[in-house]
Amino acid sequence: MNGAQSLLQTLVNGGVEVCFTNPGTSEMHFIAALDRVHGMRAVLGLFEGVCTGAADGYARMAGKPAATLLHLGPGLGNGFANLHNARRANTPLVNIVGDHATYHLRHDPPLATDIEAIVRGFSGWVRRSRSAADVPADAADALVAAMAPPGGVATLVLPADCVWGESRAPAPAPSVPRPAPVNPERIREVADVLRRGEPTVILLAGALCTEEGLRLAGRIARATGARLVGNRVNSRTRRGAGRVVVERLPYPIEPSLAMLRGTAHLVLVGSPTPVPFFAWPGKPNWIVPEDCRIHVLATPTEDGLGALRSLAEDVRAAGDVSACYPDQRPPLPTGAITPEKVWRALAALMPENAVVSDEGVTSSRDAETWTVGAPPHDWLNVTGGSMGQGLPVATGAALACPGRKVFAMESDGAGMYTLQALWTQARERLDVVTVIFANRAYKILRGELAQMGIAEPGPKAAAVLDLENPTLNWVKLAEGLGVPGSRAGSCEEFSDQLRDAIRHPGPRLIEVTL
Amino acid sequence: MNGAQSLLQTLVNGGVEVCFTNPGTSEMHFIAALDRVHGMRAVLGLFEGVCTGAADGYARMAGKPAATLLHLGPGLGNGFANLHNARRANTPLVNIVGDHATYHLRHDPPLATDIEAIVRGFSGWVRRSRSAADVPADAADALVAAMAPPGGVATLVLPADCVWGESRAPAPAPSVPRPAPVNPERIREVADVLRRGEPTVILLAGALCTEEGLRLAGRIARATGARLVGNRVNSRTRRGAGRVVVERLPYPIEPSLAMLRGTAHLVLVGSPTPVPFFAWPGKPNWIVPEDCRIHVLATPTEDGLGALRSLAEDVRAAGDVSACYPDQRPPLPTGAITPEKVWRALAALMPENAVVSDEGVTSSRDAETWTVGAPPHDWLNVTGGSMGQGLPVATGAALACPGRKVFAMESDGAGMYTLQALWTQARERLDVVTVIFANRAYKILRGELAQMGIAEPGPKAAAVLDLENPTLNWVKLAEGLGVPGSRAGSCEEFSDQLRDAIRHPGPRLIEVTL
Repeated sequence: MNGAQSLLQTLVNGGVEVCFTNPGTSEMHFIAALDRVHGMRAVLGLFEGVCTGAADGYARMAGKPAATLLHLGPGLGNGFANLHNARRANTPLVNIVGDHATYHLRHDPPLATDIEAIVRGFSGWVRRSRSAADVPADAADALVAAMAPPGGVATLVLPADCVWGESRAPAPAPSVPRPAPVNPERIREVADVLRRGEPTVILLAGALCTEEGLRLAGRIARATGARLVGNRVNSRTRRGAGRVVVERLPYPIEPSLAMLRGTAHLVLVGSPTPVPFFAWPGKPNWIVPEDCRIHVLATPTEDGLGALRSLAEDVRAAGDVSACYPDQRPPLPTGAITPEKVWRALAALMPENAVVSDEGVTSSRDAETWTVGAPPHDWLNVTGGSMGQGLPVATGAALACPGRKVFAMESDGAGMYTLQALWTQARERLDVVTVIFANRAYKILRGELAQMGIAEPGPKAAAVLDLENPTLNWVKLAEGLGVPGSRAGSCEEFSDQLRDAIRHPGPRLIEVTL
Repeated sequence: MNGAQSLLQTLVNGGVEVCFTNPGTSEMHFIAALDRVHGMRAVLGLFEGVCTGAADGYARMAGKPAATLLHLGPGLGNGFANLHNARRANTPLVNIVGDHATYHLRHDPPLATDIEAIVRGFSGWVRRSRSAADVPADAADALVAAMAPPGGVATLVLPADCVWGESRAPAPAPSVPRPAPVNPERIREVADVLRRGEPTVILLAGALCTEEGLRLAGRIARATGARLVGNRVNSRTRRGAGRVVVERLPYPIEPSLAMLRGTAHLVLVGSPTPVPFFAWPGKPNWIVPEDCRIHVLATPTEDGLGALRSLAEDVRAAGDVSACYPDQRPPLPTGAITPEKVWRALAALMPENAVVSDEGVTSSRDAETWTVGAPPHDWLNVTGGSMGQGLPVATGAALACPGRKVFAMESDGAGMYTLQALWTQARERLDVVTVIFANRAYKILRGELAQMGIAEPGPKAAAVLDLENPTLNWVKLAEGLGVPGSRAGSCEEFSDQLRDAIRHPGPRLIEVTL
């Protein structure tokens, strides 16, 4: 059995079922092994950022890692932005990068780069196999590194001769450490804080936004008067009718300052201390009030769910679900279309158990408010702030969840970084409806210019933020990539097209001209 | 004057006229400065790989650097592959990367990464400005680092507060070191070698493939019986009627071994020792014959042109141009279309002084033979082996050369990595004709499977190398990006469409179905 086969079988043993790939010469033995080892589905992306983003979306929904298979340093570079985003989502991901044969690298061939350096760019775990015999153990270690709490990107660099050389038997499923239990003393301290009745915010990370986590946190908040807030960077949130509502920290600095103003205690559950995305000149770059005390109920590597259970008992939170939102679909909007109306139409029409991948950027600023009464659904945020996450994440989510409708709510600017994802959706016949908010501008950056104190940008600056000239035609782009497309210029057109897209399985794209 | 304005003026002082950008929040002051400082053209790319590849193509044709402006580590990651390619082309490039404000980075905001680590991935020069006052001097140093022989990628990381803070006066045009003269002793030694009349190959790098460099090398080869070969990785070659023909080292291992077989002396002029792209199991991974002696006439940082001049005198190479190829356009091909006929049709129809960006991959294997008798033109190779270089390089070349027709000869697989380049071509009304070789497969990888000793790939492996299902529609993709497109299924259709595209300025795309 060669290194590639042993690698593949080790991954399968560890529960990995899908590999998102854009391979090259150095990965050919891995590709050949796909037909020798059962249980691994290979999904081709035409650009590596599609592969890494899809692996992120897959893992967020499947609750277990996918693998990626990338070609050398440049392939890793192309996948970098969505690996960075995955890392910020604490997504478990086994990132396989092929490299030159060990004895060839010293010649500095044209494709040689420093792969480990690139990985350090997003702070991931990285190891380079030293021989074919080492591959199964290295793969098992990569699985552990990816799945150990809170989850992360583990990169295994495989020189070509380690892949084609004779290897050892595949490793069995490794034992993955469970989240560390939280010291009961700490839980008691937080319970004491909550009982004081002072203004308190409980800040949840995405990993805690499971149905049970939200319900526990909702009960605690209700019992103690604390306010429930979700971190801005949340991997996955259960939302909609019958679920506990969590406000998320806004992106702009002023409303996030306003949301935490007057907070005396901030209780972190699996979340780091919240920070603003950027510093803007003359504005604060820290949103936690100065006299607010920060209490860590659970770090991201600890058992936050267990801690919430104990805390709920400690503060005698009642078992009811009165914190849950009622089933309250909005009426179908009519007339001229706006981002808000797009979201309301989605809430009015979406089937139960849908998945929403939100990269609407400025078109999504209040999307969570506009969809709060929709049927139960999962919400996948952008996490690391690098654009081009939404379409690949939707692609991976659809692969992880056959039978569930996925909506990729996408801005036209952000969608262009990784539009190749649509081709993979068509190839794999994935049930994804992509909605493009075509405002034809990097609209967020117009706002950022103002935030930076640049009141009146000149014509050159304005041109750089403008996506007109030429106008992107997303219907043609979708069709060019094998996905049927249509354009909506009014609420009625959008609702009709959305209904039709929901009724028929398979990928669809609707370009909403704003 | 803030840091952004001082930076921009320093770049303009140093001769930089174009900045290819995909900016974000941290770059807003730079964008605002575009309207305050004269002489800098900002060109927007919808994906950073377009920006870095276009800067590469621009510099190869303009002979001086462009700047790029990228957003944080993820933007740099998106630009990585073409920065790697540019580095392998020894292209001068000033790569500006915005980062978080110095006082914000310690909070580890979501978009934070280790930018310097990413740069180490492609071994470039890198510096982070420490204050706004340092920016002009840092920018001048980056210019020197980019332009010092043999040229390279210089990355300047600019924290946002260094860009918006009060800075010093812009730096004047820096003095750039010239290539070091070659020791006359070494030239005499090489002359002695050449006079022996033993089988000798003179290997030229792209920087020497100027009209004068080729003519000198051609005279020397003719006078001494040496063979003239170009490195596989060549930034720019002057070709066509009236110019000296240089065979280029082939990509596959067997023909490159065959080309150098029996060579007793290899004379390197500005080129590193040639190495195979990959190691394949059971095949040699070194193409220079074992008993061949290597002589360095000029290293990449030395004055290779001056050395060729002296060498030509020393070996008394005659001043004639009999090594030049005659004006010999091939006849227009007819009937069923093949890659060879596409190239022959191009050679038959291309106007004088055209630029060819070649990323046809398997469709280009003998393209240089098929076009040797075309009118004088420039040929831009892929250099670092990372796909997605051809369309951006053509984009930058067209910006550098108004009035010259640019042909981007592109494979369908490689074109998909950076198809967003077409939008920039439409926006800037660039005179680029893109020809897509639509063979609907990663055809090179089918060959690589065989090279790897995998004779009969199974159905899963075959599927991963297949770009059917769904079929890419490049005409719609082009139109979606604002570029008129058409499809050619025969030689007659292709010639008609090519003639039309040559006659009308502005971007065009022709998808050739093979």
